[in-house]
Amino acid sequence: MAIVLGPNQFGKAEIRLVHVDRTSPVHRVTDLNVSTALRGDFAAAHLTGDNSHVLTTDAQKNTVYAFAREHGIGEIENFALRLARHFVGSFPWIGGARVEIEQFAWERITVDGAPHDHAFRRAGAEKRTTVVTLHGDSAYVVSGLAGLVVLKSTGSEFWGFPRDHYTTLAETTDRILATEVTARWRYARADLDFGPLFTGVREALVSTFARVHSLALQQTLYRMGETALTAYPEVAEIRMSMPNKHHFLVDLTPFDLDNPDVVYQVPDRPYGLIEATVTRDDAPAAGPSWTSRDLD
Amino acid sequence: MAIVLGPNQFGKAEIRLVHVDRTSPVHRVTDLNVSTALRGDFAAAHLTGDNSHVLTTDAQKNTVYAFAREHGIGEIENFALRLARHFVGSFPWIGGARVEIEQFAWERITVDGAPHDHAFRRAGAEKRTTVVTLHGDSAYVVSGLAGLVVLKSTGSEFWGFPRDHYTTLAETTDRILATEVTARWRYARADLDFGPLFTGVREALVSTFARVHSLALQQTLYRMGETALTAYPEVAEIRMSMPNKHHFLVDLTPFDLDNPDVVYQVPDRPYGLIEATVTRDDAPAAGPSWTSRDLD
Amino acid sequence: MAIVLGPNQFGKAEIRLVHVDRTSPVHRVTDLNVSTALRGDFAAAHLTGDNSHVLTTDAQKNTVYAFAREHGIGEIENFALRLARHFVGSFPWIGGARVEIEQFAWERITVDGAPHDHAFRRAGAEKRTTVVTLHGDSAYVVSGLAGLVVLKSTGSEFWGFPRDHYTTLAETTDRILATEVTARWRYARADLDFGPLFTGVREALVSTFARVHSLALQQTLYRMGETALTAYPEVAEIRMSMPNKHHFLVDLTPFDLDNPDVVYQVPDRPYGLIEATVTRDDAPAAGPSWTSRDLD
Amino acid sequence: MAIVLGPNQFGKAEIRLVHVDRTSPVHRVTDLNVSTALRGDFAAAHLTGDNSHVLTTDAQKNTVYAFAREHGIGEIENFALRLARHFVGSFPWIGGARVEIEQFAWERITVDGAPHDHAFRRAGAEKRTTVVTLHGDSAYVVSGLAGLVVLKSTGSEFWGFPRDHYTTLAETTDRILATEVTARWRYARADLDFGPLFTGVREALVSTFARVHSLALQQTLYRMGETALTAYPEVAEIRMSMPNKHHFLVDLTPFDLDNPDVVYQVPDRPYGLIEATVTRDDAPAAGPSWTSRDLD
Repeated sequence: MAIVLGPNQFGKAEIRLVHVDRTSPVHRVTDLNVSTALRGDFAAAHLTGDNSHVLTTDAQKNTVYAFAREHGIGEIENFALRLARHFVGSFPWIGGARVEIEQFAWERITVDGAPHDHAFRRAGAEKRTTVVTLHGDSAYVVSGLAGLVVLKSTGSEFWGFPRDHYTTLAETTDRILATEVTARWRYARADLDFGPLFTGVREALVSTFARVHSLALQQTLYRMGETALTAYPEVAEIRMSMPNKHHFLVDLTPFDLDNPDVVYQVPDRPYGLIEATVTRDDAPAAGPSWTSRDLD
Repeated sequence: MAIVLGPNQFGKAEIRLVHVDRTSPVHRVTDLNVSTALRGDFAAAHLTGDNSHVLTTDAQKNTVYAFAREHGIGEIENFALRLARHFVGSFPWIGGARVEIEQFAWERITVDGAPHDHAFRRAGAEKRTTVVTLHGDSAYVVSGLAGLVVLKSTGSEFWGFPRDHYTTLAETTDRILATEVTARWRYARADLDFGPLFTGVREALVSTFARVHSLALQQTLYRMGETALTAYPEVAEIRMSMPNKHHFLVDLTPFDLDNPDVVYQVPDRPYGLIEATVTRDDAPAAGPSWTSRDLD
Repeated sequence: MAIVLGPNQFGKAEIRLVHVDRTSPVHRVTDLNVSTALRGDFAAAHLTGDNSHVLTTDAQKNTVYAFAREHGIGEIENFALRLARHFVGSFPWIGGARVEIEQFAWERITVDGAPHDHAFRRAGAEKRTTVVTLHGDSAYVVSGLAGLVVLKSTGSEFWGFPRDHYTTLAETTDRILATEVTARWRYARADLDFGPLFTGVREALVSTFARVHSLALQQTLYRMGETALTAYPEVAEIRMSMPNKHHFLVDLTPFDLDNPDVVYQVPDRPYGLIEATVTRDDAPAAGPSWTSRDLD
Repeated sequence: MAIVLGPNQFGKAEIRLVHVDRTSPVHRVTDLNVSTALRGDFAAAHLTGDNSHVLTTDAQKNTVYAFAREHGIGEIENFALRLARHFVGSFPWIGGARVEIEQFAWERITVDGAPHDHAFRRAGAEKRTTVVTLHGDSAYVVSGLAGLVVLKSTGSEFWGFPRDHYTTLAETTDRILATEVTARWRYARADLDFGPLFTGVREALVSTFARVHSLALQQTLYRMGETALTAYPEVAEIRMSMPNKHHFLVDLTPFDLDNPDVVYQVPDRPYGLIEATVTRDDAPAAGPSWTSRDLD
């Protein structure tokens, strides 16, 4: 009946890093938010405050900056793998590492019809993401995107649901469907060409959202994932979280006005939340891929 | 030595409204955040709780939704003017109105190389804004943008500043210049073609940011405003608030690495904050144009 | 018809500073967010990029930290006055300064029934604020609070309002009244004992909110301000911004349930926004007291 | 090699609900944010858009409000259990439910030295939380708190850590230790007296933070958890996430000033992040307790 230390990790979170590639006058900017975490034998720090195994979070931060200079960035998955492998190789008691990266997009400002060499505009709220987990020699890569807000002004129905004592919702054959997509897909291997894969999966998700006539947000979500997995055998599974950002028609009858799907109010909360995994029946084991930041 | 009621206003803030124009199969989506405020004789509500002059904020909200259906939206400046004039004309004790609108941009999703009819993607964090103030018969229009994040990876110097006892900053002839532009420009009249003016002023600001070799963020700001005013005589003045989003070179010498303007850390706070007005010496009087939401 | 530079200022915003008073084993912690801005002759920086008048925002930041060590903090109004006077006295072309401070509250953790000497808990979202503006030799002090969220579960009515074509709201003699108070009061002088005044004005606002049977949020606001001004002749005027955080009764009749003021839904937006000034008919001139951060 | 549907759930997130207990003139206010999610056989909705199993998120929301009226709230764990059991019992294809609740604290306003009957002040940013997961007949309860910000101005050391090529941090025997505690503890059973348990665990965490002389944030975290588990055998395990909110001494030597642990700057990012589980070696199985909102 003893009290014991369970799973634990520590690292430096949200290291904001901008890298400028000046190897040509046409600069390239890489803008990242990097979080590191180490796993291994850190019991003494917890039990007695003995820090002899604690590779400081300050050193982890320094490593991120130094590696950006020494090796460049490249695709975020490769940068994360490089860092994770360094940490696991640095001391024998460090058995695993988790490196999470968010990448913010910048696009060139157009001047006189041409993209500028070194002036950029932040391209929106959407982020590219990766979480690389190293467990001994095994590497797990989960990539994704967040903050992709999409809307269909028609082509969405919702009916045929069961009615219990608390169901008052009317059925509809035409509604606005809007959501903010968070998608994370697990790659089957760690030695892939991650840049084109990201572009391709993202394009599959976005265009499928547009194409599919929706009968349920669940169906839209599944078809998005299915399209991505069909096109990219390198992807073992994909998890999506898609809030149903409700758009409610305003009742204008008190003002002697109709409202034929024209004017909507948009509450912030509550919102439907649809979450699902689309996977392969022969997907390789996920291992610690999905262990989240807070050890869930 | 009496205690008295000073300036006051009340209204409904942050009415989220989406309008879908379905007059053709190629839908158009207008996504707004509208805030209204009324000014006039509301002393009794404050002094005795007598609400006989208080046009409820709920009714103000209803009016916004009903007008969107009845008259459509059009340019946000015109929608705001229409609402403000309605409020001022509704009861004799309402002498003024202030309508503030933020507009969020959506762009069409591309499918098979063509823009989709009714599927959209939120275009980023940048917002188009307007504040229309009606004072009796006089209308004042201040339009603008917010959330425009821009960066130059070179073409920015900072030197020649005075050095006091607390100055330790080194001079530089090459730094990253990054800012999030908030710009608000006052139009000389209220009967303008606001859509093309917005596009033109925004383009003048963005391209000037890119073009100008910067010696100070103040100089960049001024040149941006000057370009806009030169191109658009309809604009009487422009006010800009531009935080200097510092990018600091990381010192990598402890790790035997140089850092020739390649790897930067990006703190959130503190930040420089540069604010200035660029105006005309013959600009018409501003009247209540700049009275802010909270009566400043 | 020339284009000219209008009002402008620049400074360092959001300098986060914690000061620990260790002069006794019973530590005192002061936690601030300081923003500085300078006004004066900075035309050359704007017009030609000549920085010879630009006391860098980095030096302004250094000054804030150095003054905290050299002179301590004391009341935030006095710390702001000390900084503003330093800046205005530092170079002849600096004619004015604005120093804004937010203070975050910490309270001692109780251990074995006694307050701990050096362990603290952040006391909530409420902030004490000040904005000190120096214009040559004249000092203006506006202090306040923000983030004070209060609620009355009864003792609030709303009826007797006019009904136009867009009014559908029902009258009520019992509703929840909830708001987040932002209050800013202008002192008549700059040589006051600011600590007890802050405590007293805050107490007047909070207890009046609780005491007053409300017929309108406007009436509650006015009475709060009136009570503060009556008790403290040092206060020349007070401006309050009080969003009406609506609590709507849920209609439970579809489920064969009544709802006698028991279950409420709480939307985030929109919200009523009530803003007013309570002042004295013989208040001294406000000067630049209310000129906001962004030059409104 | 088929593509298949994996784990999935759907529900209504962030239902904001305020309940007023008016059974005596001394009102009690309960302020909640409730999120529901259902698990079971929802394959048809995903695969074909057949919604015949989809108990709408709108009905889930209605149920939350109706139950608040019909059964009252009580402790949030019991309210969540009641809702989860209802959902699982409502249709045969619903095999599980997850109900997450955040509770916001209000305290009475003091007037004339006495707590007011029906006027309240929001008590801060700290939240009480629970996640109840029902899997068939088995109930799992994880309760916790978030937003508890604490600081020690002394009584914290950090030294004895290993030094690699990237370690530059100096050792210290006196630093500020500050963190924002997120704690979640899993109860061994679902039929407990949750109110006193919450109060007791929270008190154990806070007072241990204050009492323990810290050699590492890991050690402080472990001792906090150990104290809670020792005092409350009903708690099977506790997981804590504690960011190290760095307070860095400002180097004032350029200004000929010392800084003997008095003036600190407080960056927002990056921050250390320490996460660990403290558990019992005979804890009952966690089952789906820790499956997070997004299916991790």
